[in-house]
Amino acid sequence: MTDDDAPLAYDARPMPRRPDAPRLSRAASPLLRRIEIVDQHGERRPIDIPAERPMTVFVDRRELVTLMTLGASPELLVLGYLLNQGLVDDAAEIDGIDVDWDVDAAAVKTRGGIAKLAEKTARRVVTTGCGQGTVYGDTMAQVGALRLPGVAAARIDQATLTSILEQMRQRHSVHKQAGSVHGCALYRGAELLVFVEDVGRHNAIDTIAGWMAVHAVDGGDKIFYTTGRLTSEMVMKAAKMGVPIIASRNGVTAMGHELAERLGMTLFGRAANKHFLCYTGFERFDAVAAVL
Amino acid sequence: MTDDDAPLAYDARPMPRRPDAPRLSRAASPLLRRIEIVDQHGERRPIDIPAERPMTVFVDRRELVTLMTLGASPELLVLGYLLNQGLVDDAAEIDGIDVDWDVDAAAVKTRGGIAKLAEKTARRVVTTGCGQGTVYGDTMAQVGALRLPGVAAARIDQATLTSILEQMRQRHSVHKQAGSVHGCALYRGAELLVFVEDVGRHNAIDTIAGWMAVHAVDGGDKIFYTTGRLTSEMVMKAAKMGVPIIASRNGVTAMGHELAERLGMTLFGRAANKHFLCYTGFERFDAVAAVL
Repeated sequence: MTDDDAPLAYDARPMPRRPDAPRLSRAASPLLRRIEIVDQHGERRPIDIPAERPMTVFVDRRELVTLMTLGASPELLVLGYLLNQGLVDDAAEIDGIDVDWDVDAAAVKTRGGIAKLAEKTARRVVTTGCGQGTVYGDTMAQVGALRLPGVAAARIDQATLTSILEQMRQRHSVHKQAGSVHGCALYRGAELLVFVEDVGRHNAIDTIAGWMAVHAVDGGDKIFYTTGRLTSEMVMKAAKMGVPIIASRNGVTAMGHELAERLGMTLFGRAANKHFLCYTGFERFDAVAAVL
Repeated sequence: MTDDDAPLAYDARPMPRRPDAPRLSRAASPLLRRIEIVDQHGERRPIDIPAERPMTVFVDRRELVTLMTLGASPELLVLGYLLNQGLVDDAAEIDGIDVDWDVDAAAVKTRGGIAKLAEKTARRVVTTGCGQGTVYGDTMAQVGALRLPGVAAARIDQATLTSILEQMRQRHSVHKQAGSVHGCALYRGAELLVFVEDVGRHNAIDTIAGWMAVHAVDGGDKIFYTTGRLTSEMVMKAAKMGVPIIASRNGVTAMGHELAERLGMTLFGRAANKHFLCYTGFERFDAVAAVL
């Protein structure tokens, strides 16, 4: 396989960065590994599987966390992780993020020191969705305070939803080539802004949060797509990113549903080809009979 | 839907408990929630989605973690979590686990106090698979020391693998009824010992670890099945449980593959119906041409 054939696990529309965005290294590493398997007919043949590597995040030289990642856009993953965990409120608090695969580490340099971060990590509440996720601070209690300013004006029509699903279906992705990764994407209408794949759906959505922060992109008029399930944590992260409309190829859990309903979000699940279920917020959806 | 129709998200072969196993409450709660959806034809209809609830784990009154769970077997989940995280070495260290859904809490009472646990949680290394998992202690470094005593003698034949896949396919599961959960199972040959579904594959495998601990079941001659992907963390947990053979309906990541290879395990992926790929350890597999 040549590099020209390689699928893009990170693909973003070029956009201006906000002036005070952190410096980011651009650490690259192979996305696929070729291994030899034996199939049910006893035949040996090569297949590609997704890479997965540990990345230990150091904030001002203090070790914070080790993330297992595909590594498609590790700097934005780190930034989005810090934001979605509430460890950092604004990208401008970060001076730079340098990822070095020789040592599997991401060095985060803050502008104002880590006092706040140290305080926040002291109160650690670990929640578990698909994996067993860590959330710093009492995030569940924060849900009550969460508001989505874009919700009132948010709308999506059926042609847009269908176009998004078709774009995702056709995409030359790591998932299509090697499976075993989740993809997430951010859309404005039917226009793709950023697409990310990672070994975990949490990493993929965090990377999108990092991209939004660097480019000062508001979530209010956006649509979030994911191949993964809509558990409480995925819905909460989308809400934190201010995105009121979510479409998933997969299903929803009771808490994901409850949270979305409480926040007035619109959730589509089992969305592929021209099929979908609308779990909540159907009133924001313009159905077009002709599309069916 | 009546209770008689309800799928079992936890199903285990009756086996004697080890005499010093912890007391476990038997907290039950509904596995499914019925919601109303609108489909692509604009039609409203009810569907079932899996429950998902927070369970905050207190060890000797000290808050440890909040797990999001389907709640099929919460006590075994807590026990398996403590074991797989290395916070407890033996089930006998635990006196009892009481889950109370009125307060969404699991109260763990230890026999010897929490000194060791307090020491272990001080060094927290958080790793990320599908979600963003927390592992206490330097688990990655422990891999080098990990040994699977059962590996040398472990074998599986094609009829057994096919039978396991067929049993899993036919099962009246929460996944079949409502989607959005992962299932894990432990087999001795083609005999199902325990089956668990949860909103996360990590929870499901942890619950199986809890079941093995309570019944003093050794992993060496067992086969672990999962619907989820074989990321590094899933392979590591199976290895810790001493199970040398893993079959997944899903794929593998590079680190899951590498780890299994290093430990001499046998991994099957993309395993459904009579199809599979053997990623590592094909030498432990007895292919039967007649089955194909």
